[in-house]
Amino acid sequence: MTGNSFGENFKITTFGESHGKAIGVVIDGVPPNLNLDEQDIQLELDRRRPAQSLITSQRMEEDRVEILSGVFEGKTLGTPVCMIVFNRDQHPKDYENLKNKFRPGHADFTYFAKYGVYDYRGGGRASGRETLARVAAGAIAKKILSQENIKIIGYTKSIFNIEAKKFDYDEIEKNPLRCPDKIAAKRMLKKILEVQKKKDSVGGVVEVVIKGCPAGIGEPVFNKLDAMLAYAMLSIPSVKAFEIGSGFNCATILGSQQNDEFYYDRKLKRIRTRTNFSGGVLGGISTGENIVFRIAVKPPSSIGQKQRSVDVDGKRREIEIAGRHDPCICPRIVPVAEAMTALVLVNLLKIR
Amino acid sequence: MTGNSFGENFKITTFGESHGKAIGVVIDGVPPNLNLDEQDIQLELDRRRPAQSLITSQRMEEDRVEILSGVFEGKTLGTPVCMIVFNRDQHPKDYENLKNKFRPGHADFTYFAKYGVYDYRGGGRASGRETLARVAAGAIAKKILSQENIKIIGYTKSIFNIEAKKFDYDEIEKNPLRCPDKIAAKRMLKKILEVQKKKDSVGGVVEVVIKGCPAGIGEPVFNKLDAMLAYAMLSIPSVKAFEIGSGFNCATILGSQQNDEFYYDRKLKRIRTRTNFSGGVLGGISTGENIVFRIAVKPPSSIGQKQRSVDVDGKRREIEIAGRHDPCICPRIVPVAEAMTALVLVNLLKIR
Amino acid sequence: MTGNSFGENFKITTFGESHGKAIGVVIDGVPPNLNLDEQDIQLELDRRRPAQSLITSQRMEEDRVEILSGVFEGKTLGTPVCMIVFNRDQHPKDYENLKNKFRPGHADFTYFAKYGVYDYRGGGRASGRETLARVAAGAIAKKILSQENIKIIGYTKSIFNIEAKKFDYDEIEKNPLRCPDKIAAKRMLKKILEVQKKKDSVGGVVEVVIKGCPAGIGEPVFNKLDAMLAYAMLSIPSVKAFEIGSGFNCATILGSQQNDEFYYDRKLKRIRTRTNFSGGVLGGISTGENIVFRIAVKPPSSIGQKQRSVDVDGKRREIEIAGRHDPCICPRIVPVAEAMTALVLVNLLKIR
Amino acid sequence: MTGNSFGENFKITTFGESHGKAIGVVIDGVPPNLNLDEQDIQLELDRRRPAQSLITSQRMEEDRVEILSGVFEGKTLGTPVCMIVFNRDQHPKDYENLKNKFRPGHADFTYFAKYGVYDYRGGGRASGRETLARVAAGAIAKKILSQENIKIIGYTKSIFNIEAKKFDYDEIEKNPLRCPDKIAAKRMLKKILEVQKKKDSVGGVVEVVIKGCPAGIGEPVFNKLDAMLAYAMLSIPSVKAFEIGSGFNCATILGSQQNDEFYYDRKLKRIRTRTNFSGGVLGGISTGENIVFRIAVKPPSSIGQKQRSVDVDGKRREIEIAGRHDPCICPRIVPVAEAMTALVLVNLLKIR
Repeated sequence: MTGNSFGENFKITTFGESHGKAIGVVIDGVPPNLNLDEQDIQLELDRRRPAQSLITSQRMEEDRVEILSGVFEGKTLGTPVCMIVFNRDQHPKDYENLKNKFRPGHADFTYFAKYGVYDYRGGGRASGRETLARVAAGAIAKKILSQENIKIIGYTKSIFNIEAKKFDYDEIEKNPLRCPDKIAAKRMLKKILEVQKKKDSVGGVVEVVIKGCPAGIGEPVFNKLDAMLAYAMLSIPSVKAFEIGSGFNCATILGSQQNDEFYYDRKLKRIRTRTNFSGGVLGGISTGENIVFRIAVKPPSSIGQKQRSVDVDGKRREIEIAGRHDPCICPRIVPVAEAMTALVLVNLLKIR
Repeated sequence: MTGNSFGENFKITTFGESHGKAIGVVIDGVPPNLNLDEQDIQLELDRRRPAQSLITSQRMEEDRVEILSGVFEGKTLGTPVCMIVFNRDQHPKDYENLKNKFRPGHADFTYFAKYGVYDYRGGGRASGRETLARVAAGAIAKKILSQENIKIIGYTKSIFNIEAKKFDYDEIEKNPLRCPDKIAAKRMLKKILEVQKKKDSVGGVVEVVIKGCPAGIGEPVFNKLDAMLAYAMLSIPSVKAFEIGSGFNCATILGSQQNDEFYYDRKLKRIRTRTNFSGGVLGGISTGENIVFRIAVKPPSSIGQKQRSVDVDGKRREIEIAGRHDPCICPRIVPVAEAMTALVLVNLLKIR
Repeated sequence: MTGNSFGENFKITTFGESHGKAIGVVIDGVPPNLNLDEQDIQLELDRRRPAQSLITSQRMEEDRVEILSGVFEGKTLGTPVCMIVFNRDQHPKDYENLKNKFRPGHADFTYFAKYGVYDYRGGGRASGRETLARVAAGAIAKKILSQENIKIIGYTKSIFNIEAKKFDYDEIEKNPLRCPDKIAAKRMLKKILEVQKKKDSVGGVVEVVIKGCPAGIGEPVFNKLDAMLAYAMLSIPSVKAFEIGSGFNCATILGSQQNDEFYYDRKLKRIRTRTNFSGGVLGGISTGENIVFRIAVKPPSSIGQKQRSVDVDGKRREIEIAGRHDPCICPRIVPVAEAMTALVLVNLLKIR
Repeated sequence: MTGNSFGENFKITTFGESHGKAIGVVIDGVPPNLNLDEQDIQLELDRRRPAQSLITSQRMEEDRVEILSGVFEGKTLGTPVCMIVFNRDQHPKDYENLKNKFRPGHADFTYFAKYGVYDYRGGGRASGRETLARVAAGAIAKKILSQENIKIIGYTKSIFNIEAKKFDYDEIEKNPLRCPDKIAAKRMLKKILEVQKKKDSVGGVVEVVIKGCPAGIGEPVFNKLDAMLAYAMLSIPSVKAFEIGSGFNCATILGSQQNDEFYYDRKLKRIRTRTNFSGGVLGGISTGENIVFRIAVKPPSSIGQKQRSVDVDGKRREIEIAGRHDPCICPRIVPVAEAMTALVLVNLLKIR
């Protein structure tokens, strides 16, 4: 019950504090003979970096990944792949004024309650920066999945009360919101800038679609595909909710609607369902339809406003978090959600 | 990545098909010297049984639990506790007409896709009946938690479009809906009967509150308390969504609202938060506030209406599921959700 | 780190006290569509039963196995298989005089030290009787392995100072010693009877040969095939030592002897080694040669002689264990060692 | 069933090929607030380095450990500790002539059989160099154990046919053999030099004693203390055998001898055994006596003699391994055996 590993067949263990020496991941279970170099990983990591746009976080360093093990002459060996990114931005002075004070919405207090010690420099492990290790691992998982023709597509579905109405998949990586609806993306951006001016932040909903997953994937009873996805998604910092298929809406429709009718698709030569209220999973096992789920991303906890809090001794303190803050992290959560999805699938597929 | 175990320190493995010889559970990690007899378990199992009301399922047999191991002279030994319930209602004839046909909304098809074989008698493992084993294990977990003054309270929050408005905890076990609002319960029941007449079914939302959980429980990064709860909840048949604290609503509020202010409670002599938008969890670790989460329960898949489907060969078939069907299972999900919550906590608390 | 499970892909969890209600096992990871009935298991269990010979233990009840789950219409479902044997011989009165006294060589004291409570009726979990559950699980593992043409053969190699010199595999199951040398078996039996007269007991060495295991089985670094075998063997009650290939003898030969020369076998069309000092494993992975290892089995701890000990309060006590005792358990350890070997292999082979 | 992790509560994952970029380890489960710096680790690593003696391996580089994570302001955070040692000695040219040829006694062939690819530069993962990561992790485990007054002492018990007769613990770290008998050490060294001249190698027996382990440590049935030790020891490259207490000798003594008599030690105020044939473990759980076990270490596989072998295509090849070879690795196995012992204990003790 130690908390830094995920998966069994393709098991990742992440390590590293936000402002420590390095962030990294070890993966045990990478199949041998897979072509792999640092560029494969770097491409995904770069998607996590702040866009050259107004909705950026302040840390602009480039995160260069290094593969330390498991690859020989351009191919994986079947042995553990360790990847690290050295932190070039270790300037704890910025955090000196936050020392011993608990930032609201952050995990400073709960880490302190658990361990009796915590790294006050930017959240330590409880930082968005830790997800960099997941994205690196996910890049390998995605590569394996692409060989099986499985594709994972994540995007911003809504920001505050602005929802994507159109779904143009080609649009997703073109706008800074990673939103499949160009017009909605513009409105979202406007909203974010407005919130940012008030030194506040805003959340949203990210949706992920898995295409090409064959029927029969997922374990029954406990390692269900949907349960694993929920687990993986809630493990992402800032995610407060998960729903698959009809999701919360299933509570307000009838069984005769929720039940997806089976039919035989003569062209694809396989059994399919006409609707997909199940979200592509029945009894925890994939149906062969698209797997569709959504997560709620809370507004970033680091805001520029003065906030009331306490210090480690329980004394009342005002907190003002210096620096520029990312007013909305949904677009940056997208590659993380995709990575975690890939990790779930590659584990359940048991590819060796 | 076998799928029938849950937990590590208090590890349960469930077994048994819905209409096989028996349903059971083995628990490895029950602390020694705990007073335990079959009555402790039976009380919780009875909560899972259909109420003497109109919203009952048709299987009326009494499920008698037997403890096979791990208890000696009324006390646990620290060795595995195995509990079984023999199935007295093995009448596969009722299911003969469903043989080789895939019931919509059920896992018949996905099990067949996965294993190439499935138990057509009532879903095999993918039956609500399997949850009986979890409730039995949860009864022991609850007993352990009660020694730590941790209490878990589940209830029906809404059915279709009818929501509980009042929260009278004492009311919960008094009405067949397990709803804390007596008047809402009546309206819910009326709705259910109306749906039942149309041979249809209806879902709802169940909410669970954990009281008394100290700050510092949960592992960071992957075995987060909220991620484990999401995983546990989505492992329950029919659950399609999970949210904690502000949940999906976090997407539509600002950071300045979502961030719960810390203060020092002089009476309780501990740091607390004034609001609880986090739902009692920050960075995956408990804050010491109530932990509050909700799950969406889909309408039961077994409905009396004729439905279109296919058989194992992909041929078009009409299906009519005989017998009386439970039009709404929310009240029966409540003890299952509580049991799974208890299992999450007892694992994370690492009590020995 | 709970201690009653073994394996990951074919994971067994055993439960039950020696004189409790039942002994049993749940297996998660049995492949679907395997023909299986109780008779398959019973045959292996019967090999564990005392022979109708002079070297018998006193419990003569027949152990009837019941399959509770995971099998439907004669085939496995891919779901957990639970098997139990009810204990018909629950007569705690025989043990009443041993209550609170620690039998030398047994685990009464260490269980009490660990848990603060123990089942004084025949060792509880720390009884040879627990191995019955492993043999039942091993019977299924063996069945799976036989489909891969892997065969496991165990036998008594020596008793006290009497060693098998001839190796007639057909002889093994014909004599009560399970010794491949008929003449040695007679001498062993004579020795055992002699020891038994003195109310004493005697140990021996059991050897196991795995035939037909392909090259490439075993994980590197930690889940090494030989490390897993050592672990599995030392988990069997009474086993005090393990060696593979040249074993302890490797310490007294030179590298030029220990190194097995590789050659290409034109008939079998694969690379082989001329000698087998490695015992069929290099770097934790099988070479394709026979895998050969030995274990030392201590003399049974239950002897008829009066022995000095203490009770739970540390008071000096004399102990006399009533009933007839098995003066040598090597022949009964053979099927247990085979079962554990099968469980190691089936886990490492990752057959699904 | 991936093979590069060990333990659950104090879980280590090692990574890195012998001649890759780096060797390292991540530990999940290090308790918080432990004083820790690189010097603590370096001291143990230095014990693994070749002595300034005749029995050295040829790689003379200094292995400098770097802590990448989990330590902040000199104290552990409770988060994963990652430690790496960069390989400064990456000169694959030395190995060019071994490319595609299988060295006898090494794991080249079995890795190739398993993965279809292998790192021919010095064994990749199947190198003694990988144990460096275990020693680094073991250094932390030892530190934790020392706080519990548990001490682990390993030494060379015999080389070839020369056995230590005296046990002067203070002598162990004074001679290059790590032998507690000064005179035997001299004879051992003479033997080794003699063997070395013939371009051959020699093995030996290493013994480990655990002092101060309280009664009650170890899990019953499967995670037995002795089974875990056997597993840990056989995971060390070159180890072919394990025995505890009377070990293989138990097969040739009577039950009345093997059974250790219990008595109450009035001075220590606890129950003890007069003899220790059990080796400090009964039923898989510690008795509180010294835990004593031995392992057999095979002669190093790399010898200077010409050896016959085959290449990846099965063609006959002569092999001559260039460089100076370590003719005996027993003294270098000692810190590795101690480290693995510490890892077993710290996992079973469940210290947090």
